[in-house]
Amino acid sequence: MYKNAKIICFDADDTLWINEPIFRESEKRLYEVVKEYISESELNKELFQIETQNIELYGYGAKAFILSLIETALKVSNSKVTANQIQQILYIGRLHLNSPVTLIDGVEKALSSLQSNYKLILATKGDLLEQERKLNKSGLVKYFHHIEIMTEKNSENYIKLLKNLNIEACEFVMIGNSLKSDILPVIEIGGMAIYVPYEITWKHEEVNEKIDTTLFTQVEKISDILPYFQLTMSNYQ
Amino acid sequence: MYKNAKIICFDADDTLWINEPIFRESEKRLYEVVKEYISESELNKELFQIETQNIELYGYGAKAFILSLIETALKVSNSKVTANQIQQILYIGRLHLNSPVTLIDGVEKALSSLQSNYKLILATKGDLLEQERKLNKSGLVKYFHHIEIMTEKNSENYIKLLKNLNIEACEFVMIGNSLKSDILPVIEIGGMAIYVPYEITWKHEEVNEKIDTTLFTQVEKISDILPYFQLTMSNYQ
Repeated sequence: MYKNAKIICFDADDTLWINEPIFRESEKRLYEVVKEYISESELNKELFQIETQNIELYGYGAKAFILSLIETALKVSNSKVTANQIQQILYIGRLHLNSPVTLIDGVEKALSSLQSNYKLILATKGDLLEQERKLNKSGLVKYFHHIEIMTEKNSENYIKLLKNLNIEACEFVMIGNSLKSDILPVIEIGGMAIYVPYEITWKHEEVNEKIDTTLFTQVEKISDILPYFQLTMSNYQ
Repeated sequence: MYKNAKIICFDADDTLWINEPIFRESEKRLYEVVKEYISESELNKELFQIETQNIELYGYGAKAFILSLIETALKVSNSKVTANQIQQILYIGRLHLNSPVTLIDGVEKALSSLQSNYKLILATKGDLLEQERKLNKSGLVKYFHHIEIMTEKNSENYIKLLKNLNIEACEFVMIGNSLKSDILPVIEIGGMAIYVPYEITWKHEEVNEKIDTTLFTQVEKISDILPYFQLTMSNYQ
């Protein structure tokens, strides 16, 4: 269906490697530190609200998240949080930043099968250093012709990306786990998209409006994208 | 002297707009918060050491800096820092991130004089969101053909940049205030460079080794670069 595409563009977090579970783990660790002040469900609500308020100022990524963890601890403890607890939160942040990169099943096979017939690129949003570090740890750099790290994945930034790549929207397929960041803005500018949901979606990426699901393809797992593309014979072996 | 250059590449922080004074101001504010625990000079020493240790994990930019401010407060207070003081440090961080962008004298004139005969690009290191935000606030976006935000300005990354721009090193002139990040790595790969020192150099950017100053040009202020380039007549008016 997408055989005439020239560029296949992959999202990274929770499309190529797991990401949300690392945040959930750090949130559990935060709860262990501040549980004398608040219940786990209330804590997660407060954290979500503070993270949302901070996106404009801090952007995405682990450093923004660590600053929001500290702010949340101050708030939920009613400024009773101790220096020692703040120290523990900084440590949670270090563990978070040093997390290993775990590829999602089937990713390496999908990339190696597609790379001979298509130009593969990676487009992710977030912190430059963190994303470069994860990409290096992933061992996937070799598959990509171009890496784009954006502050926001909106239609305006996808237009810029296509212009830089010197390609038309109709030759571009985006593959990712976020309707909001990977699918809808690409459809909007006339590109194609395959939605591969991950088991957890970050609340910030949830879409509440009604979506016309006929405009894109949805598959269950990354290996399911392969039948939509032209593969060379050796890839079937 | 550089009339045959095709691309003129500018550093941003402390080359186009002031940056170091904002960090110095935030450091003074930190001292006001923790002065019961330590002298100002000792505080600055501790902060510098912690920032240096954290560069690998946190990278450059204001969020990394804020996390280091908090870590420093924990250390210098011997874990006596209060929740209220941590709150104040987060506020220092907000002020820091929301600082206005102040252009260095002569920048706009230099860019407008050069843009008709050369392709101007901007290459900066640091946090993607922060640098994009500063660039937008600066009003200088219109002068640049390309913006490159790098995690480190080393010779390897300059080689990648030249490759992306499809240009030879001998057609490339870099202009900046850091010998370590703007001048030496560009010279090393066969490019040209003009060093425009700023009144304060970040300690991390200081170079201790002996430098062959015949390999690049040094000028006092940004407007002094103009005689080295080809300008159209109207620019002299």
